[in-house]
Amino acid sequence: MESTALQQSIRSLRKRAKRLASSSETERNQLLHLIGEGLRRDWETIKVANERDIAQAKESGQKEALIKRLVFNEEKLHASLLGLEQVASLPDPIGTIKQRRELDEGLLLEQIAVPIGVIGMIFEARPDALIQIVSLCLKSGNGIILKGGKEAFQTNSALVASIQKSCKDSSLGSAWLLLLESHSDVDTMLRMEGDIDLLIPRGSNAFVRYVMDHTSIPVLGHADGICHLYLDAKADISKAIEIAFDSKTQYPAACNAIETLLVHKQIAPDVLPLLAERFSEAGVIIHGDEQVCKIIDCIPYQEGDWKKEYLALEINIHVVESLSEAINHIETYGSHHSDAIVSEDSDSVRKFFTEVDSADVFANCSTRFADGFRFGLGSEVGISTAKIHARGPVGLEGLMTTKYLVMGTGQVVSSYTKDGGRSFLHHDLPLDKPSLLGNEVL
Amino acid sequence: MESTALQQSIRSLRKRAKRLASSSETERNQLLHLIGEGLRRDWETIKVANERDIAQAKESGQKEALIKRLVFNEEKLHASLLGLEQVASLPDPIGTIKQRRELDEGLLLEQIAVPIGVIGMIFEARPDALIQIVSLCLKSGNGIILKGGKEAFQTNSALVASIQKSCKDSSLGSAWLLLLESHSDVDTMLRMEGDIDLLIPRGSNAFVRYVMDHTSIPVLGHADGICHLYLDAKADISKAIEIAFDSKTQYPAACNAIETLLVHKQIAPDVLPLLAERFSEAGVIIHGDEQVCKIIDCIPYQEGDWKKEYLALEINIHVVESLSEAINHIETYGSHHSDAIVSEDSDSVRKFFTEVDSADVFANCSTRFADGFRFGLGSEVGISTAKIHARGPVGLEGLMTTKYLVMGTGQVVSSYTKDGGRSFLHHDLPLDKPSLLGNEVL
Repeated sequence: MESTALQQSIRSLRKRAKRLASSSETERNQLLHLIGEGLRRDWETIKVANERDIAQAKESGQKEALIKRLVFNEEKLHASLLGLEQVASLPDPIGTIKQRRELDEGLLLEQIAVPIGVIGMIFEARPDALIQIVSLCLKSGNGIILKGGKEAFQTNSALVASIQKSCKDSSLGSAWLLLLESHSDVDTMLRMEGDIDLLIPRGSNAFVRYVMDHTSIPVLGHADGICHLYLDAKADISKAIEIAFDSKTQYPAACNAIETLLVHKQIAPDVLPLLAERFSEAGVIIHGDEQVCKIIDCIPYQEGDWKKEYLALEINIHVVESLSEAINHIETYGSHHSDAIVSEDSDSVRKFFTEVDSADVFANCSTRFADGFRFGLGSEVGISTAKIHARGPVGLEGLMTTKYLVMGTGQVVSSYTKDGGRSFLHHDLPLDKPSLLGNEVL
Repeated sequence: MESTALQQSIRSLRKRAKRLASSSETERNQLLHLIGEGLRRDWETIKVANERDIAQAKESGQKEALIKRLVFNEEKLHASLLGLEQVASLPDPIGTIKQRRELDEGLLLEQIAVPIGVIGMIFEARPDALIQIVSLCLKSGNGIILKGGKEAFQTNSALVASIQKSCKDSSLGSAWLLLLESHSDVDTMLRMEGDIDLLIPRGSNAFVRYVMDHTSIPVLGHADGICHLYLDAKADISKAIEIAFDSKTQYPAACNAIETLLVHKQIAPDVLPLLAERFSEAGVIIHGDEQVCKIIDCIPYQEGDWKKEYLALEINIHVVESLSEAINHIETYGSHHSDAIVSEDSDSVRKFFTEVDSADVFANCSTRFADGFRFGLGSEVGISTAKIHARGPVGLEGLMTTKYLVMGTGQVVSSYTKDGGRSFLHHDLPLDKPSLLGNEVL
């Protein structure tokens, strides 16, 4: 789209998306169901578009992993329809009361959850992600600007056309949703501070960093995913091996797969040969430090390895003297994403939970659990390593902001100064009453 | 400080402040009390330092308003001591459980509140603000780097010396607190992404904008404070006048004082003469649109006035046709900080609460209530107009982030795939049990 035309579209979306923010839960849930029915209705068109995308991707020699993500078949349709129903069944995030306080007689404060406004979402060539993102934004009352990976453009267009058709049959209209086409559209978005409230970029490290470095709009997400698993002196060896294997191999391209395994020196002689055997089954290449190389066959550690995100069947193994050394290593080389300990010792686990400053910290289970669906958030728009706003898998909660409402009966501040003589009650009230926005109170 | 020396100090603070993050509530509350006792102990030194600052400020011809803020007398000491006790009595924000879910048998998820890490706070020449900020950061377990207005440097140094002396008597030490000296130190801070987690600048619009534009560290705060009061067709006239008067004159230099009064045309002939009389008592200069000028004496509106933040005894008055026009005006010219309506009509109030997209929205009371203490948050580090992280007055809650902890018994993700056959329980658990970090569970 021409840059000024796009700017106008985004501004118009911002204005018209306000209708969504003040819609009822029923309206939004009904539209989620309508969208599901629409995808079924338009399935043939969507399928043909996806086949075209796949054919083009194969022709242009794209990697197998990309094509796997690009496929939108009946199985993925089914999962998407299930996802829409799940999001519809989640509690309404709009208007949730976070604080309620009687400041003084007849002066009531409420802090309520409201949609952020307009979300700009830039994501990889994965059509099912589009449906996830749209459903979470709709449920949370946010306008959404989508830019998907170009390899999925025909599928995404067919999906958005279907969704917009369903929207037009609803009371909410389709003005809250926009699909962008070209990479230059992304650069226009990055400059639209004030019109876009939050950017959520997904994709390669380089791309996420590019977005973070070229916008003053707040960005939620993560660049690196350098995750660790530490096998403690008191680890249960068989759990350790299964968890290491799953954390590395279950989906090595995922951001929450581990890149470095830290092994306490006491158990290294026992655990390393067993690990090497298990890893070799899956074809995992091992980079080991000096001590590791003494015990098993591996590629000797080279400077910089601790900072590498392989995203492939490749792993670093490092023998450490102590739990503290492991924690230091994670703090020094990690990306504060997802890190795990295997230990039967509760003090070690507690120390690890307390001192590892990561979005997701695990004990005695795989780092691959770091995911919005697995965490029971319904779905996710991404995983954030930021410490501000939302951290870890981001579901509906991360798409909300708050607003303070104060309802008075004529109060002024001068009454509460030294001369005024009144003082505040600051009496916390139960949160389970209807909000000031409801009919009952006003 | 030399730039590299300062960088080293900040990195060392970051490392050593971790002790604070894992301290107990008792340790932090005891230190809050110790700091209060210390300020009393060192009162003579602090007083002398403040007198020097004031003398210098007067010599260099500083404005009365600055000197008023600069004064740290026995009354302000008393208020500060009270503030320290209040913060000590607030519930511990560290470890608060936000979510707890049984993902599957023996696989427990918790989302808990943890300190953000290191906060960089840049604030005006107001010594009492230093104590407020230090107390909130200490209570919330965050390391703090302070840079106060240079006019207060001797007072701030005396305060920090006293606080550090008290810290040394405690189990927590003083390594979590650093006072910077010069403006060039601020520029060093702005470049320390990764070492400072959050910047909170207070002061002039220009300064806050400068900080926002020159750092990639997240910034919390607000630049403009263009706040509005709308007097609805169904406003109670006497409430309207008192609220308008308080919102403008009670402390005109505050960010939550109003700059523009919007008046429904139906009540303009009645309310404007009364308002003009009340405002003239306080010496408020009125800028009015054409219709206002027909009813009362005022300076005719000039292009750009709606965007002005007077921060003084000066106000715009604009007659509007409808509530919708008022809301549009606020959305177009406001800074989404604090806006209010006066109306006896509950539908108008509800529409205003719903459609005005500001951090704080008021009905039938003064905008001057927008303040952490008045809202019952104990105290505040500032007011944020950002939609991300914290919005409105920022107290302890805004200084926290969260962390997901997952405690398993050997679980791997491959068991939960189609082939693995297990599915999640996702069973929400009560939040009032001790956390995974506590002794009872592990």
